[in-house]
Amino acid sequence: MPILKDKSTSAVEIAPGVFRKFIHLDNLMTAIIDFKNGPWDEPEPRHSHPHEQTSFVAKGELIVYIGEEEYQLEEGDVFYVPADVPHTVKILSKEVRLVDNFSPVREDFL
Amino acid sequence: MPILKDKSTSAVEIAPGVFRKFIHLDNLMTAIIDFKNGPWDEPEPRHSHPHEQTSFVAKGELIVYIGEEEYQLEEGDVFYVPADVPHTVKILSKEVRLVDNFSPVREDFL
Repeated sequence: MPILKDKSTSAVEIAPGVFRKFIHLDNLMTAIIDFKNGPWDEPEPRHSHPHEQTSFVAKGELIVYIGEEEYQLEEGDVFYVPADVPHTVKILSKEVRLVDNFSPVREDFL
Repeated sequence: MPILKDKSTSAVEIAPGVFRKFIHLDNLMTAIIDFKNGPWDEPEPRHSHPHEQTSFVAKGELIVYIGEEEYQLEEGDVFYVPADVPHTVKILSKEVRLVDNFSPVREDFL
């Protein structure tokens, strides 16, 4: 099935209070990440990966740290992370939903 | 800037009542498409492209037609379209927001 129905698809809890579900093709993956453990006092440590990433803020408010810069984002905003650039987030609201897109596919999620 | 701020970024009207804005990297593009001309009586004609596509329903309800199948979707749902598979949508609510992701980049959008 080429669809992910949000209400009937269970998510995997990848960290306490953080849930992920995803769909993918050969070279493109879209993951819904629900942070239900906000707000945070501090960002997570930065991480990087060779995959290009774009993320859509479907719900909530957060700060995204990309390289040396930081940006406060709210619902409807989008950010991108070039390959291998360290990045992280700090969740500012009680709940945040990010839609993370990756190319190539994050094989580590499968 | 690696961000698109929704409220301060103007969109291009690509068809009457249909608006698009986007962000992209080398091999990944994310476009916000706002359909403000719903509901529709009929779907648009099917189209296809060699780019892989995933789409997140950020707002509203629609039917997506992928190959010979059709699926009714609502906010929070995701669909994918493999390369070269004919597809289209029929907008069911007054407004729909789709977040369309493509790999490779849709050069025809630039």
